[in-house]
Amino acid sequence: MSIEARLTELGLVLPPAPTLPPGTVLPFRFVRVVGRRAAISGHGPVLPDGRLWSLPGRVGDPITVEQATEAARLTGLAILASLHRELGSLDRVTAWVRAFGMVTSAPGFQAMPAVINGFSDLILAVFGPERGQHARSAVGVAALPFGIPVEIEAEVEID
Amino acid sequence: MSIEARLTELGLVLPPAPTLPPGTVLPFRFVRVVGRRAAISGHGPVLPDGRLWSLPGRVGDPITVEQATEAARLTGLAILASLHRELGSLDRVTAWVRAFGMVTSAPGFQAMPAVINGFSDLILAVFGPERGQHARSAVGVAALPFGIPVEIEAEVEID
Amino acid sequence: MSIEARLTELGLVLPPAPTLPPGTVLPFRFVRVVGRRAAISGHGPVLPDGRLWSLPGRVGDPITVEQATEAARLTGLAILASLHRELGSLDRVTAWVRAFGMVTSAPGFQAMPAVINGFSDLILAVFGPERGQHARSAVGVAALPFGIPVEIEAEVEID
Repeated sequence: MSIEARLTELGLVLPPAPTLPPGTVLPFRFVRVVGRRAAISGHGPVLPDGRLWSLPGRVGDPITVEQATEAARLTGLAILASLHRELGSLDRVTAWVRAFGMVTSAPGFQAMPAVINGFSDLILAVFGPERGQHARSAVGVAALPFGIPVEIEAEVEID
Repeated sequence: MSIEARLTELGLVLPPAPTLPPGTVLPFRFVRVVGRRAAISGHGPVLPDGRLWSLPGRVGDPITVEQATEAARLTGLAILASLHRELGSLDRVTAWVRAFGMVTSAPGFQAMPAVINGFSDLILAVFGPERGQHARSAVGVAALPFGIPVEIEAEVEID
Repeated sequence: MSIEARLTELGLVLPPAPTLPPGTVLPFRFVRVVGRRAAISGHGPVLPDGRLWSLPGRVGDPITVEQATEAARLTGLAILASLHRELGSLDRVTAWVRAFGMVTSAPGFQAMPAVINGFSDLILAVFGPERGQHARSAVGVAALPFGIPVEIEAEVEID
């Protein structure tokens, strides 16, 4: 089964390219292909209409673990959409390599791994336990661009 | 001399796999092998009994540089243990590539490099100045999972 | 045109190796070459006399976006200088792969992408839109070593 068919089977729809605030200039690529490596820029959660999902405050206060986990899942879908646009087909992804997950964290918040599971569970559901496996970090950061609660950078191997 | 013999010579003992708090689900791999690359997930300090070394507060207040440097050294041993479990032998590591070291930092704390030297000095002592060399970053983060004061992500080349 | 000639054309001068505070020990390499990969350690802004550009406070308060963007540009020049020292010639860089940009961020600061554009714009101006392309993240961190406002880690492919 192709990855695109698998997405349909799971009822998943990839979002459009993100609509950024007026005046934003991002001179880099969302996905950079060098040989068999595809380096994926830091992504945030993109809503179905293309807007970034900004939330006031930080995870732990007042953003809940449930909201942040959903943000990580939406970030994963945004990454899949960027890969699809760059590669033409997600079937070209032969292996996930690593993901670096960042969570804005209120004082005392420690559940970054549960949050970033929203991303990991998505990737494993779509690509399966072999191809979808990845090394991962989940850490708390002071702040992220555009008020997003989660940002994830990653890398995949392609054919 | 094998790396395992070198560990013995240095009096180093690798910790067991970490015992995580009840309910913790980590669906990713601690080490992800893709071709000749082994991507290493963010690790924290693991005590000889397998517990993560959590400390209240942040480095600089009240955690001391000495404590945090020891935490970075224990994190290095935990990474070596994960590599050993995944690869079967540490002799398969042909070169260290990079390490990304994160330190929870109290306001005004700037000695992240001295802290992460606890990791770098260990790797260089075990693998020597050629094979153990690595690019490195050492930065201050707002918070880390499970109350650990240090988290390190890395990558090695394997045969 | 060689990259060195391009630097001259743009009026750019690479800084010397950074002069670190007395007592600082950095046992790792600023650039680690493994095969065709050159992993670049976290760099900060280096002034023409070799001193690190430290600034009190964080970006957003009182450090301005303009100052921080210049710091990201100086960080890019410091990275080019490290690559030049390690590789002998910047012409050996066949492709930029990724950059991870960290900005110390005062509460409410969200313009990390504009800041790290100081780096990306430099790399694209020097290496051109194909060879200079890169995946990128721009995030806010709690603190950085030596009081630097920006730190950037990166990777390039070499021949």
